[in-house]
This record gives sequence, structure tokens and C-alpha cells, in this order.
Amino acid sequence: MRLTRRQLITAIGRAGGYGAAFATMQAMGLLAPPLRGEQTFEIPAGVGKNTKIVILGAGIAGLVSAYEMRKAGFDCTLLEARGRPGGRNWTIRGGTKVEFVDGTVQNCEFGSGVYMNAGPGRLPAIYPTMLGYCRGLGVPLEVEVNTSRSALVQNDGAFGGKPVELREAVNDTRGHVSELLSKSIRRGALDGEVTADDKERMLAFLRQYGNLDFDFAYRGSERAGVAQLPGAGDRLEQLREPLPMHALLDADFWSGMLFEEELDQQATMLQPVGGMDRIPYAFAQALGAIVKFNSPVKEIRKTAKGVRIVYADGASGGATREIEADYCICSLPIPILQQTPNDFSARVTAAMQGLHYDRAYKIAWESPRFWEREYHIYGGISWLTRGPIGLIWYPSGGLFTERGVLVSGYEFTSERLNSVASTLEEKFAASRAAVEKLHPGHGRDLQKPIYVAWAQIPYSLGGWISIANLEAGYWSGPYNDFIVPDDRIYFAGDHCSHVVGWQEGAALSARRAIGMIVERMREA
Amino acid sequence: MRLTRRQLITAIGRAGGYGAAFATMQAMGLLAPPLRGEQTFEIPAGVGKNTKIVILGAGIAGLVSAYEMRKAGFDCTLLEARGRPGGRNWTIRGGTKVEFVDGTVQNCEFGSGVYMNAGPGRLPAIYPTMLGYCRGLGVPLEVEVNTSRSALVQNDGAFGGKPVELREAVNDTRGHVSELLSKSIRRGALDGEVTADDKERMLAFLRQYGNLDFDFAYRGSERAGVAQLPGAGDRLEQLREPLPMHALLDADFWSGMLFEEELDQQATMLQPVGGMDRIPYAFAQALGAIVKFNSPVKEIRKTAKGVRIVYADGASGGATREIEADYCICSLPIPILQQTPNDFSARVTAAMQGLHYDRAYKIAWESPRFWEREYHIYGGISWLTRGPIGLIWYPSGGLFTERGVLVSGYEFTSERLNSVASTLEEKFAASRAAVEKLHPGHGRDLQKPIYVAWAQIPYSLGGWISIANLEAGYWSGPYNDFIVPDDRIYFAGDHCSHVVGWQEGAALSARRAIGMIVERMREA
Repeated sequence: MRLTRRQLITAIGRAGGYGAAFATMQAMGLLAPPLRGEQTFEIPAGVGKNTKIVILGAGIAGLVSAYEMRKAGFDCTLLEARGRPGGRNWTIRGGTKVEFVDGTVQNCEFGSGVYMNAGPGRLPAIYPTMLGYCRGLGVPLEVEVNTSRSALVQNDGAFGGKPVELREAVNDTRGHVSELLSKSIRRGALDGEVTADDKERMLAFLRQYGNLDFDFAYRGSERAGVAQLPGAGDRLEQLREPLPMHALLDADFWSGMLFEEELDQQATMLQPVGGMDRIPYAFAQALGAIVKFNSPVKEIRKTAKGVRIVYADGASGGATREIEADYCICSLPIPILQQTPNDFSARVTAAMQGLHYDRAYKIAWESPRFWEREYHIYGGISWLTRGPIGLIWYPSGGLFTERGVLVSGYEFTSERLNSVASTLEEKFAASRAAVEKLHPGHGRDLQKPIYVAWAQIPYSLGGWISIANLEAGYWSGPYNDFIVPDDRIYFAGDHCSHVVGWQEGAALSARRAIGMIVERMREA
Repeated sequence: MRLTRRQLITAIGRAGGYGAAFATMQAMGLLAPPLRGEQTFEIPAGVGKNTKIVILGAGIAGLVSAYEMRKAGFDCTLLEARGRPGGRNWTIRGGTKVEFVDGTVQNCEFGSGVYMNAGPGRLPAIYPTMLGYCRGLGVPLEVEVNTSRSALVQNDGAFGGKPVELREAVNDTRGHVSELLSKSIRRGALDGEVTADDKERMLAFLRQYGNLDFDFAYRGSERAGVAQLPGAGDRLEQLREPLPMHALLDADFWSGMLFEEELDQQATMLQPVGGMDRIPYAFAQALGAIVKFNSPVKEIRKTAKGVRIVYADGASGGATREIEADYCICSLPIPILQQTPNDFSARVTAAMQGLHYDRAYKIAWESPRFWEREYHIYGGISWLTRGPIGLIWYPSGGLFTERGVLVSGYEFTSERLNSVASTLEEKFAASRAAVEKLHPGHGRDLQKPIYVAWAQIPYSLGGWISIANLEAGYWSGPYNDFIVPDDRIYFAGDHCSHVVGWQEGAALSARRAIGMIVERMREA
């Protein structure tokens, strides 16, 4: 019996679910190839006909859910408490009002064309799902410069507090490491591990790796930056003396130096042109009236054949409304769920207990771009080893324009900053002082500061599942209760993935929830 | 006696030349600060009044010369043999005709929006002179991604010829180096060099540096890339086995791995949006009728009080014309000067003898951007260790668009390519094979190839002063005859700088020549 291709695919679909069918279609060349590493995702068109879905939260997980399910014919409603899409994907510009739950209000006064990504600020090239959506939605991307060799590392306790260029710290360290290893090899200390043949090759390699002299000594390298650049006529390059290894050990620059090699921080990194929120706005535009803004969820209830959501309807001035649906995808952050009356199972309620989100914050300033003109720093990050402010992040957008937004202070937790600076003014002073330390004379250039403390932002109340929770076994414990449905409620968000704190995790969790719903409908 | 500021500056100018006066003005805050590292340059306004200058060659050196001297009131004429400005700064697009001196003609058929930078393709952030001109001329710049951790390194003799991601080669190497050095330290092999205290700190550092386990063994790292990315639900990250050090030594990936740490290749690198030739075109537009295109120089003569240049006048259909001037800035490449009748001194004539330019080449193709979609490669360079083609350079412009131009083959010399491929078709086949080796199945995607061999390009006849000449003592020998004037002829070009092969060197040499002329006029 010869099957047509469609019959074959249908048969495979019956036996192995839509995932298997999709893989078969792909193998048969019926679909465009996905991005490498992309988790294939395609819902059969029309599968959602006559099925109602209510989606809670228009962050990336909620937006992806609505976008994919609408394509498959589901009748979707997406409730969003705020007047904008994106959730933590929030770009602050002149005119944005930043309100804290404690009543603090900041009105951003940035000039036109500059912005602060208060939440995510990077798209790694290795995360194909978000890049795929940008491609599909037509969101223009540009390079996010995650590391610049002209950026600085600084430690009050080393080199008299004087900042050092990243190129110097990185390459002098490598020079010393190479010299020390070549010494060990020549002394025979590694004869058990390294064959005689490899020994010679290893030494030849280390000479290049560390830019060592012919006698295997490290005496400095152009790679570490120069005291004077070469020029015309008789202007010769002048090398610097290398920083001694002992002093580099004192300086403890490692976290700043190694950041660029973390898998999700490696070049090439990308960002939407004009601000990260170009992504949620593109989703929202595609979804149109499906998204109900200014409509916070008041209750999450189960019914005999689905769910019932009570919410304040933004379109009716906040009047209480209800919506019933066959399924719910709930992407609200856990601190919000903890406060929302609900019918969750005892299992889910217990899982939520004791979970909290990191008190991540960012402080940003508008400033003339002195870092470009005077420091050759175009994007990238400078690192401070001590003190409350750990980094200064330079903008990758709008290079060579007059003004830009500098992030001086971005930490997972607020504790270090709060311990020395309680008021807003004190926090801004600490942030300004960090810039002054790396760029003397330029602390005074900083204007129009904005402090975003995610634990204080309504409808978020934190950054992401805390590192404390993760270290205490989140993924082997409570996580397992969020990645299975609670009756007809399916959870989504980066906390339902192993990619916490990244939009990629949120998008993948949404796809997975949809997949589970479609599979359940197919089985029914 | 109290001097006014202007009197003080004038007095310093008299005593120390315009450079000293300028430095004083700057110290007194009378001028905008230059880019850090920029060699200060300002000619007194009006100093060139009633002085005629003829400038030969509208490459970067000639353009900078005309641009600066016109500002200072000189009466400038810039003769250019070609119909376009830029010299080796040449961007090839659909419609560009590539003609070789041997008669070979290629007509570029690239689609709109894509281009090949046949000459320079990068602007390092550390070279402030060119960036300063881009700023001043309003040439929009964007990031040139010079390294991508998703790019590949490959060697037919290692790993069965299978390409390896740069992240894997870089981070596995670092892991092994760290493991070996920590072993040596723990065995006491370096007790003479490393104090007991530093020893502990060094081990703690190496654990982070190489991402070693608690027992100081390197067993692989997420940094080196993963077999499976983490995802939602139960999708866990899967690590790869590390590449063994012995195999990495076989592979000899070092030059590709270390390229990114060369001082003039380090992040952040930049490029003009739309092609490198946006720079010379911006200069030419600012200069207007000063530039005479299609006007090759026929003779370079000295007169009693200046110079006389014989040229074919483009505006008159190539009719022979002469121009007399007080001074000449000659930025023609040495292979062209060697063929041009002249009145150079015996000293300069001797200096030119035996000099030749490297036979640099590039091969480029238009192609769908499979490297982005399937490999997560956004800009950067992949490296091949053996064979005629040593690198594949991915475009940094137009990311996420449908088609781009891939450079497959860019070498300083043509010898390696010519030894296996004499015809154009054979060269293209070799170039295509390199792409096929790194990106199986995609060799066939390449279309509309262009081969630019600089030794074959009229009015250039080569890339830059050959490495052979440089190694044979160019800078301590002939160079010294080009950086001083030959009567009233001043030489300029990257060959009159210590930054050979870079636009920065050309620009600095031009400024230096102008400075010498102005100084001579002041002294006269």
C-alpha cells in the first residue's frame, strides 16, 4: 500500500503527535528549514477552531501564546494589566512615567532618540526563537556590542584605583599564564601529561597565545594596548609595561574579563533598533484587538469545562468583567499570582510558597557621549570590582550621535546598593560616583537619571525567580508543578523554562504550553 | 607685562611652531577636545592664501590633504586617474566594472543593497583620525563584527576535517591551559615564581579562567557551546565533550583564534553604513570641483619655484594639460611612481628601487544568508588552516536581510591561490570549495563572483608595501626618504606611516605633509 505524503503525515501524526508529524514534514522538505537549534514549532492550521483561550499577561510568553494560537484558529483574548505590551521588556523614553508601588514617581525626561531598556537589553545570536520572531514580525535588529576592548576594569584596591583597559587586563593575564605554563613545561613538570612531541608544539602555541618573546618571557604585548599609537613620519608605537601578575591577582578583574565568554553573552549579540520594546509592540500590532490593555486580572477561577477570569476592563474604565474560556495560559509573574485570588490546586499553591523574585535594578542617565569621543568606547561594559555599582553599560544604538543613555548600575539584587544608599538621591549619587571613578570629570555630564527597581514595579514585583530559589533546588522542586497544567490552566513565562531571565525562555515556555493544549485536544 | 590670550598664543606660535601654539590653545580650553589619542591637527585659517597646491591621487591621503588645505585657504587641485575617489578604498556593487591590466574584465551583477569592500573593510575604534573624519563629514558608521563565537575554524588534518565553532576552540583551549597550569602550581613547579599566597589566588583564578571543576580538571564548559540548548519544560542543556588538547594542537587553529586580539582588530570595530567608499565620496562631495577625475598624471616635474604636473585632463577628453603649483603632495602608490616620468632626486629614485606591493586579493560572492539562518553567524570570520583559501568573512551590514556578500578568500599575497588555480574559473572553484567545506550544501548558493587582485588593478598595481620589503628594513631604509620632502614634493600615503595598509596611516601621513609645508612657509 502506497501512502500519499499527506496520508503518511496524518498517520505519523496519529501515532506520534504533531511534533513527529512536523519533523516528518520537515524531513520531506515540505517546510522551510528552521533556524539552527530552533525547537520546531508549527500548529496545524484550524486546530483551534471553536476553542476559546484566555491568556494572562502580555509579556513575551503571553504575546507568543496569543500570536501562535491565533494563527491556528483559536479564539484568543489576552489580558494585560498595563497600558503597554512587553511586561519586563520595557523601554523607557522621554515622557515615560516610572511609578513604584511605594508611591515614588519618576518622569523620564530623556531627549528624543535615546532610550533605556529597563528590562532585557540583549538578544544572543544563539537563541533562535526570539530572532525568528523578530524576523517574522519585521523588527529590525542591530548589533549589541557586548564587549569592547577599550572598556575599563577598576578596583579601588589595585593600581591605586586607576582603571585599566579591558585589553590590558585580558592580554597581560594571558601573557603571564602562558609564560608560567611554558616554564612548567620546560622544567618537565608536566612530562606525565604532555608527550615530548606535544611539548614542543605546546611551547610553540604558548608563544603565540601569550605573545611571548623567543625566550618564553612575557614582556608586554601590543595586544594589551600601547602608550602611543604608531603614526606617520617618525612617530613610532610605544608599548606599555605589562601589569604584573601579582597586581592582577590583587585586582580580581576576572568576572568582568570572563563575562564575554558566557555562552549567552558571546558575540554576536543583537538588539532591536530603537529599543527592546519594538518586539512586544510588533506582536501587539499583529494581534490587534485581541490584547486588552489596562485590564488587570482580579481572580483566576476554574469552571466545570474550563476557566473563568475576573478582570478590570480597561475599555470600560476599569469595570469588573468576566471572561470564560476553554483553556487559560497564565504568564503572570509568581509574585503577582501569589496575590491574586485563584482556584489553583493545593499542589500549585504549595509550589508558589517561598518563591520570590530577585530585586534587580538598573540606573540610567542621559549624557553626551564622552565615552566614544574620549575613550574609544563604542558599546560594551566597564566593570567595577568594589562598591555598590558593579558595571557601566554603554549604548550600542545611535553610535556617533551627540547624546546617549548610560546604564551605571545593573545588578541582580538591590542589597548592595541599598546598604549604602537609601534615598533615590543617594542611589543616583552612587551611580554618578561610579562614572566619575572610571571617567574623571564626567560624573557631572550625567543628567535626567532614572532608577528602575523591578521589585517596586506594579504587576512585576521583581526581576525573575531568585538565584536563592534556583540554588535551593527550584528546577528539581516547584518548577515541576508549573510545567504541567493545573486542570485547564497552563503556566508560561521564563520561570517555566531552564532559560530564566531571558525572553527566549518565555517564548519557549509559551510554545510548550500551546503544544500541550493542542495535544490534549487531539487526544480528546 | 600682561599678555592677552591671543598675544600669548601668537608668541608661542613664533617660538615653537603651530603645533606648540595649538597645544597651548587646547590647554587653555580654546578648542574642542580631540578624540583621545588623536594627533592634534589644526592649520591656522588663511595660512594658505595665495599658495597653490597640486595633490596627486584621490585616495585617503590625497583627499585628506585637499580637505585640510582647502580649509586653510590653499588653492588646491587634486588629480585622480580614475572616475571615482578612494583609491584602494573601493566598494563594488552591481554595475561596477572590474578591469585588470591584463585585459580581464568582470562586470559585477550584485543585486541592490549588497556590496563588497574590495579594499579596506574595517575602521578600528582605536584609530581616531578616520573616525574623526567620518564624524566631521557625517558618514554614518555601524558596528563591523570582527569576531563571532559561532564562526568556524577548520583544518583538513584535524577532527576529520569537520569545522569546529570558534567558541569551542577558544574555550576548550583555555580550559586545558588552565588545567595544566593549575597542575604545575599544585606540584610546586613554580614555587620560585609564585608566592604561597599568590599560589592560592592563582588557583582560584584558574578555576574561573578555565571553568575548571573543583578538582581543577577541565571536563568541558558551557562556554564552548552545547550539544543542546536549554529550553522549556524538561528540556535540559546538554554539554559537549571537550576537544582534547592533543587534537587542538594538531588542528593549529591559533591564528584564527588570536586574530581578534590583535590591537587593530579588537572590538569595537566599525564600518560606514552602505560601504567603505562612503568616506571618499563624502570627501569628494565636500571638495567639489577641486577633484579632477579621469585625469591620470603623466609627468612630475620640478620648476624653479615649485612643481609642474603634466596630466591627461578628464574634462577635456584626456587632452594633455599642465598645472604649476608652489607645492605638490604626491600620494600615488610606489608601483605607479616607478612608471611615471619624474624629476625626483637620486635619493628618492634609489629609495623606490626594489620596492613592491603585496599582491593582495579578495574573492566575493552574492548569496542567501544561510550563515545567519542556519549557523547563527552574524558577521565575523571563519578560518581554514590549510588549502588556498584561508578565511570566509561574513557581512556585518544588512543583517537579517535576504542576501549578502560573502568574502571567501582574502590574502595578502596571491601565491597560494595562484599555485592551485590559474584561471578565474579555477579561483572561483577554490573559493566555492572553501565555503562548501565549512557549510556543506551551500557552495551551490554562491552566485555572481568577483575577484579583485590588487596587483592587476590599474593605478594601484598592488595592495601595500610588501611584507617582504617591511621585513627587509623598509622603515629603517627607504621610508626615511619618503617622509622628508624632495624639494617641493611631499610624499603621502600609508607607505609614509607606520600604519601600513590602514586608512589611518594614509590620513596621518597627509596631515604630517601639510604640517611640514605650513612650517616651511612660516619659516620662509
